[in-house]
Amino acid sequence: MANRINHQWRLAARPEGLIKESDFTWTEEVVPELQDGQILVRNLYLSLDPTMRGWASRDTYLPAVPIGGVMRGGTIGVVEESRNANFKVGDHVSGLLGWQEYAITDGKGVNALPNLPGIPLTAHFGLFGHIGMTAYFGLLDIGQPKPGETLVVSAAAGAVGSLVGQIGKIKGCRVVGIAGADDKCKWLVDELGFDAAINYKTENVAAALKKHCPNGIDIDFENVGGEIMDAVLAQINFRARIALCGLISSYNATAPVPGPYNFANILVQRARVEGFIVMDYAPRAMECMTEMGKWLMEGKIKYRIDEVDGLKHAPLALNKLFEGTNIGKLVVKI
Amino acid sequence: MANRINHQWRLAARPEGLIKESDFTWTEEVVPELQDGQILVRNLYLSLDPTMRGWASRDTYLPAVPIGGVMRGGTIGVVEESRNANFKVGDHVSGLLGWQEYAITDGKGVNALPNLPGIPLTAHFGLFGHIGMTAYFGLLDIGQPKPGETLVVSAAAGAVGSLVGQIGKIKGCRVVGIAGADDKCKWLVDELGFDAAINYKTENVAAALKKHCPNGIDIDFENVGGEIMDAVLAQINFRARIALCGLISSYNATAPVPGPYNFANILVQRARVEGFIVMDYAPRAMECMTEMGKWLMEGKIKYRIDEVDGLKHAPLALNKLFEGTNIGKLVVKI
Repeated sequence: MANRINHQWRLAARPEGLIKESDFTWTEEVVPELQDGQILVRNLYLSLDPTMRGWASRDTYLPAVPIGGVMRGGTIGVVEESRNANFKVGDHVSGLLGWQEYAITDGKGVNALPNLPGIPLTAHFGLFGHIGMTAYFGLLDIGQPKPGETLVVSAAAGAVGSLVGQIGKIKGCRVVGIAGADDKCKWLVDELGFDAAINYKTENVAAALKKHCPNGIDIDFENVGGEIMDAVLAQINFRARIALCGLISSYNATAPVPGPYNFANILVQRARVEGFIVMDYAPRAMECMTEMGKWLMEGKIKYRIDEVDGLKHAPLALNKLFEGTNIGKLVVKI
Repeated sequence: MANRINHQWRLAARPEGLIKESDFTWTEEVVPELQDGQILVRNLYLSLDPTMRGWASRDTYLPAVPIGGVMRGGTIGVVEESRNANFKVGDHVSGLLGWQEYAITDGKGVNALPNLPGIPLTAHFGLFGHIGMTAYFGLLDIGQPKPGETLVVSAAAGAVGSLVGQIGKIKGCRVVGIAGADDKCKWLVDELGFDAAINYKTENVAAALKKHCPNGIDIDFENVGGEIMDAVLAQINFRARIALCGLISSYNATAPVPGPYNFANILVQRARVEGFIVMDYAPRAMECMTEMGKWLMEGKIKYRIDEVDGLKHAPLALNKLFEGTNIGKLVVKI
């Protein structure tokens, strides 16, 4: 078979502030021969996620991507060659296969994707997979919603937040989203069934929360941190749960960022803040997929894909997450 | 019976920073006649606790003490008159009976204290009651210590902290205390059996934690907040528990205080921060008293009373808690 050329984005520098294209290098290399046990995957879609900003800069729950290494990223791809009995040519798979056109892997951490008739491949990013699991387990395991409680979701028009609010509604909560544009707020209320949405760029968040959460806040699904989290913490109820999913407001910070000024309210209200990372829930992936699939069929949950065309645009497209210009799940079509 | 004169400290102003004596007014009034259902208690000891700084300034988990009102405080007293069938003259009782020599109460929230032969009354402040329960339930319920884990306690030579560390040892943990004086550190290690103690006024806390917690920190019993909590948060382990008991470093603050700069490490390490207040555990008081009494008899737990003589000294004595000049439980002998 003719030599395949693999284009890749490699990390060139630790970014300062927002990503610059010069933080990455566009490289190409010939795809080598497979060895026993390996598969060759042609990547079709790359997931862009806020956590990548951390991977590029520092050790977090995973080691920092090394300078010169292919940038880490979750992809959906198709198996083009296989010398591994667990995968056959034509299988669709997902895994952390990087910002590149081709990946060779021994299959560890790579999942074969079921064929779901009528459901596009990108659903594995928008509804199932790491996004759906983050929303599902973060809300249900950490947030522990009960009917009649009030749930606030920040970055509510993002991939995770938009699912969290809908699951909150399924579980009988009053759901209030916080987002950064009127069209996002309209989508949350009109299309996804949120009870209310707050545009933090044009509204006073504290006053709007007071208005839309007349019984206080029982659950905060926190994606943002900073001033927005502080406004929420000021209005939490006795024994509130704060599911700490992300702190996107600080990911581009170039100086140490203080924790919430209303930290003491966690004590006063006997609240609980708990961090979680989706990969810890990998053994329970099927539970989430089953439930999400059922809700999708029943018309109870919707997702939206925000698709960027071409791997070449990946570095700057990542900034959309921090500038708030995406709605729903941001993916790159490779 | 001759008229009794009741001397009282009443709140005169919302304190700014450390307490000044002028924030209180020393008043006297004649003790009125009892009505049906009431008892008259002569207070013998007043407990001084960090949380009082909050009560004087603002609504917290209890409403702020009103200006002009008798300052709120837990006392141990003796019943001098009773028109309530649940209490008889001579009973020792405890409750939130205030910074005053006498209190009249209908008995709600007042507990009769058992006579424990050979154990002084002040043990109900130093080992049992709200102090013991704070240490016991905070560590066991929120901290969930397991043998072999590492527990860090801040304000470790205080009333609660000194008990927490000892209970941690009973439960098989490695226990490291943080305190503000060499004699406190010596007491923690030599007398109470802590594995190590760090003098935060003379040592680099981060470096000392690194040295004394070679396997990282699994449980933080947090009494202090601020820089000390930040140093601890930087070294927490996967699924660490932070039992949020107090944030004494900020109680005298005159401007908003930021939360911990290492807040994001809660997410990275999938840790849990949970606030608690001892009064929520009132229904389980007997469980704590039974265990603590057993440990006392077995010589496994010690407590220390730091006694101030005379109710007149109460306002300025409260500052000892914030200046760190007390060792063990601070009480006023009335």
